[in-house]
Amino acid sequence: MSTEIKKIETKLFTVPLPEVMSDAKHGDHYHFELVTVTITLEDGSEGTGYTYTGGKGGHAIKAMIEHDFTEVLIEKDGTNIEEIYDFLEWHIHYVGRGGIASFAISAVDIALWDIRCKKLNQPLWKVAGGANNTCKAYCGGIDLMFPIEKLLGNIKSYLERGFNAVKIKIGRENLQEDLDRIKAVRAYIGPNVTFMVDANYAMTVEKAIKAIEGFKQYNITWFEEPIIPDNYKGYAEIVDATDFPLAMGENLHTIHEFEYAMEQSKLSFVQPDASNCGGVTGWLAAAKLAAKNNIPACSHGMQELHVSLVAAQPNAGWLEVHSFPIDEYTMRPLMVENYRAVAPNTPGVGVEFNWEKLAPHQQ
Amino acid sequence: MSTEIKKIETKLFTVPLPEVMSDAKHGDHYHFELVTVTITLEDGSEGTGYTYTGGKGGHAIKAMIEHDFTEVLIEKDGTNIEEIYDFLEWHIHYVGRGGIASFAISAVDIALWDIRCKKLNQPLWKVAGGANNTCKAYCGGIDLMFPIEKLLGNIKSYLERGFNAVKIKIGRENLQEDLDRIKAVRAYIGPNVTFMVDANYAMTVEKAIKAIEGFKQYNITWFEEPIIPDNYKGYAEIVDATDFPLAMGENLHTIHEFEYAMEQSKLSFVQPDASNCGGVTGWLAAAKLAAKNNIPACSHGMQELHVSLVAAQPNAGWLEVHSFPIDEYTMRPLMVENYRAVAPNTPGVGVEFNWEKLAPHQQ
Ligand SMILES: [Mg+2]
Ligand SMILES: [Mg+2]
Repeated sequence: MSTEIKKIETKLFTVPLPEVMSDAKHGDHYHFELVTVTITLEDGSEGTGYTYTGGKGGHAIKAMIEHDFTEVLIEKDGTNIEEIYDFLEWHIHYVGRGGIASFAISAVDIALWDIRCKKLNQPLWKVAGGANNTCKAYCGGIDLMFPIEKLLGNIKSYLERGFNAVKIKIGRENLQEDLDRIKAVRAYIGPNVTFMVDANYAMTVEKAIKAIEGFKQYNITWFEEPIIPDNYKGYAEIVDATDFPLAMGENLHTIHEFEYAMEQSKLSFVQPDASNCGGVTGWLAAAKLAAKNNIPACSHGMQELHVSLVAAQPNAGWLEVHSFPIDEYTMRPLMVENYRAVAPNTPGVGVEFNWEKLAPHQQ
Repeated sequence: MSTEIKKIETKLFTVPLPEVMSDAKHGDHYHFELVTVTITLEDGSEGTGYTYTGGKGGHAIKAMIEHDFTEVLIEKDGTNIEEIYDFLEWHIHYVGRGGIASFAISAVDIALWDIRCKKLNQPLWKVAGGANNTCKAYCGGIDLMFPIEKLLGNIKSYLERGFNAVKIKIGRENLQEDLDRIKAVRAYIGPNVTFMVDANYAMTVEKAIKAIEGFKQYNITWFEEPIIPDNYKGYAEIVDATDFPLAMGENLHTIHEFEYAMEQSKLSFVQPDASNCGGVTGWLAAAKLAAKNNIPACSHGMQELHVSLVAAQPNAGWLEVHSFPIDEYTMRPLMVENYRAVAPNTPGVGVEFNWEKLAPHQQ
């Protein structure tokens, strides 16, 4: 039977969040958007991929997949993932190279990887590198506006869920408030829990340097996105001034953008997100580039998929366990054992959606 | 009466091209897409903006404007264009910074500029700088696969339409074919017609250098997009090796991307496109950055709008008269006098669509 693509079905869901979440630059989140793509080949094999957003762009992603991708992908060989990836990049090049196109390509690519792994009868962590099936993991929330008591309650819930690493948002107008929050969290978790901070690019280079001077005494593992992702050289300026470890990657959408960051930003960690940098294919390219630069490959968001990708790398970094709970709408929410996230062992990418639970949220 | 935004209407048209057009990297074009946005304020004032694509992405652009922009823009002050521009950039930041989002913001921005100019009772060329109401212009086609005879027929039609500057596509697999075409065109137009070439990034740095060595004897004014736009430093490598003038800009979608090009690419000309770099606001920011770097601000596509923007600048460069004939669907197709394009003098951006002519192509 042929492996030509026979059918592509795209769905958009608007999933409400348990409570309003805020960060420094994206405002309030009331829900997240999930776009799923299910691809069926002529031989009957089927795979599902997906992407997500913080609440905007989902309709555009779905429109691109339906109007610009579906017809041209039908009858292409669904097992030639790398060829399809290249084809799609050029197909929408003029309106692409980042933005919505990267999200749309990601969802299609993950669906094809799901098929690839199922055909090999292997889990993603084996096909994507196979270095390990577990990885370090930390919990982070969109908690910038939480008062300190609530923030600590949140941290407590992370520790109770079996994590020994946490991240909080910073980037309030008043730097002292950031420092107070950091101090309170470190006091609460004690010296042995790993602790990161994330400003969602709310700062200038100068303010970031000041912030680091204020919080470096609290043993912070990394400072994530202190400044806008576009200012690659600004990251290096911060490192030059402070020698402090920086992280970024969730806003890098093309391999070129990862190259600029590697060349110019003096990062200590990189955090590609397979939902917005080209799916498994794009994520692996970024992870490989990180390895070449001796940098650990971490991840952003969708822990239920990234656990397999991060664990599989020789340069595995930290898995982010994000507060958009996509994994609660799958058949296997993220598993944590001995403080490490455990990749699923089922053939495929290991993310099977609970369509019944999602149904009420379909657009 | 209040200047709050009351209504936003978005339309998508798929407009057939008179014949199939091909370039080196985007394949065959059978039609172009036009997305129009008409904004009405509480006080009854109305403006129309637009963007276009080579045939893909139109549905996604429309979806973003309708689902992510419209509701949040209602009741915002439609005369605070710069505020709305900033708001939109942050509003879709996570799925933005280029790609579809840049096209969507552009269409909204142009509509607001249309209102601004109408309220001032002035044409765009006056409001956008006022340096002049005419500018240099050249004709270019998507003619890579035209046999030489047909190519020369095309060039003849440009000259007959009143232009004394022409551009052709190059970037064939076989470099000698490019050189033969360039030689034939220069022989045909004689020494006094300005002549540019455009490879749509079909080449490597090495091939581009070889190409320049082959065609520099033909007095070519610029070599446009020899290599992928993402390889900013590669442009400088070509300039260092050849001292030949390069141009790019149609694929730069954010002010940061223009900054990278200015800092790294040693360009001689920059060609922002208001339909994909943030409308009038984005185009003017790019033109100002070009002025700061002593580079002429040219344009890409939609000549009916860009004529006003280019003419208005102290560092006015060349207006591209593109072969997507959007202006044929407006009430005032581009005017050329004494080899110069003439900006409209009517209040507004000067682009009034012929809705009746467009109607059969609405999606
Ligand atoms: Mg982050
Ligand atoms: Mg061009």
